[in-house]
Amino acid sequence: MRIRLDLAYDGAEFSGWAKQPGRRTVQGDLEAALEQVLRVSEARVVVAGRTDTGVHALGQVCHVDVEQWPDQTQRRLNAVLADDVRIRAAGPAPDGFDARFSALSRQYVYLISDSGLLDPRARGGVWVWRRGLDSESMHDAAQRLIGEHDFAAFCKARPGASSVRTVLELGVERRNDPRDPRLIEVAIRADAFCHSMVRSIVGALLAVGEGRLDGDELAGILQAAQRVPRFTIAPAHGLALVEVAYPPDQELASQAQRARRFRGRST
Amino acid sequence: MRIRLDLAYDGAEFSGWAKQPGRRTVQGDLEAALEQVLRVSEARVVVAGRTDTGVHALGQVCHVDVEQWPDQTQRRLNAVLADDVRIRAAGPAPDGFDARFSALSRQYVYLISDSGLLDPRARGGVWVWRRGLDSESMHDAAQRLIGEHDFAAFCKARPGASSVRTVLELGVERRNDPRDPRLIEVAIRADAFCHSMVRSIVGALLAVGEGRLDGDELAGILQAAQRVPRFTIAPAHGLALVEVAYPPDQELASQAQRARRFRGRST
Repeated sequence: MRIRLDLAYDGAEFSGWAKQPGRRTVQGDLEAALEQVLRVSEARVVVAGRTDTGVHALGQVCHVDVEQWPDQTQRRLNAVLADDVRIRAAGPAPDGFDARFSALSRQYVYLISDSGLLDPRARGGVWVWRRGLDSESMHDAAQRLIGEHDFAAFCKARPGASSVRTVLELGVERRNDPRDPRLIEVAIRADAFCHSMVRSIVGALLAVGEGRLDGDELAGILQAAQRVPRFTIAPAHGLALVEVAYPPDQELASQAQRARRFRGRST
Repeated sequence: MRIRLDLAYDGAEFSGWAKQPGRRTVQGDLEAALEQVLRVSEARVVVAGRTDTGVHALGQVCHVDVEQWPDQTQRRLNAVLADDVRIRAAGPAPDGFDARFSALSRQYVYLISDSGLLDPRARGGVWVWRRGLDSESMHDAAQRLIGEHDFAAFCKARPGASSVRTVLELGVERRNDPRDPRLIEVAIRADAFCHSMVRSIVGALLAVGEGRLDGDELAGILQAAQRVPRFTIAPAHGLALVEVAYPPDQELASQAQRARRFRGRST
């Protein structure tokens, strides 16, 4: 049977999602917990968004195929896992569900506080920028990135892999957070992301917010489809995967067949 | 001239507010930063709420008397201070202002997540309780504590000091936080608090939430005015001082005179 797991984690102490020998990773911790609690020799999880070192998640989704899923398994997994990763929900997945290939879109949120950070308890999840940013011009310029484009300018090159992605939503706004009125949220939703895409886009939008780049120039960089060394890649700790969207259960089986055709594509 | 400073801090790495030799405290760090930035030999700050080891603050208020307050002093202080304490606002205080004696009330918030914590990034500020709590019965029982009472049952004994306080508001509710639907907020506002009062009240309310204590028994404990060893004192990391309320500027001078009569009283 296939189980869907919804996870949240604090990325600070993880070398990202993907299992690597000798490093602490979310996948490594989760598979070890599954093997211990379910008493199986090997549990393999498939994930919607392979987050990088230091990136957080609130709404990560993965699946695992198991023989059985006894009552209390979620609670027992959380008891075994360290407290910087939590299973928010777990249970049998609908027919045809695949955490990676069924996903319609992923949403990430990046937080920046300009002119300092006024709530120190948020500092593990916010990029502090010492100068003021014009969040409205950042938002306006960001609209130029919406749609299907080759995002090679914002992707770490991977020979042979396509960097065509569809950005569905991209908004920049001050959160009006009473704890920190200087908090700016960059929210981006796309069908999928290439490596370091969100952090590269945030770095370019920061240049816009400082008046060093305008919307036309940003559109030009996108069109040139060449990586630009000119902008900072925003640091990992400001970024969180907040949601993965899936089709309604009854559409999953047919959608799964279509998705299989795109197996080679990076998420 | 008297300067009002509004502060936030993450209490995790501090041995509380009050300066102590050989320990890192918020007062110690702040006074050292003031002495360095203002180039004075001694800066003494007076605070509204002397938080304990591990307790956080979002809206702490203090004052300091200085010869001058040059432009950019706030920014320079934040540059000198470690990033777990931030000055949110700073500037000349109105006539008659005293951070401690002018304060009308202090509000604290305590966060509990029952049946586990679903957003691990919040774990530095939330007490995780493994069993479900009835937050409505906690709220109902809590109403019995509102008003002026001798809170000796909920105070660490201090010979000769009064433990009469006035609780102005006390509410317990689920926050409906999308990141953590199991998050319960205990919000309490009083004229002042004796030592460990909020954490003792939260410990007793937890017993109510588990059905081990009812509202009448809680009222009886209050009336007996004797410390009860029966309940857990809630751990410090769930607690934060969120707001200190002051009268309007024009009332401060006359109110300051009245307040001076109560100088002996603990805050």
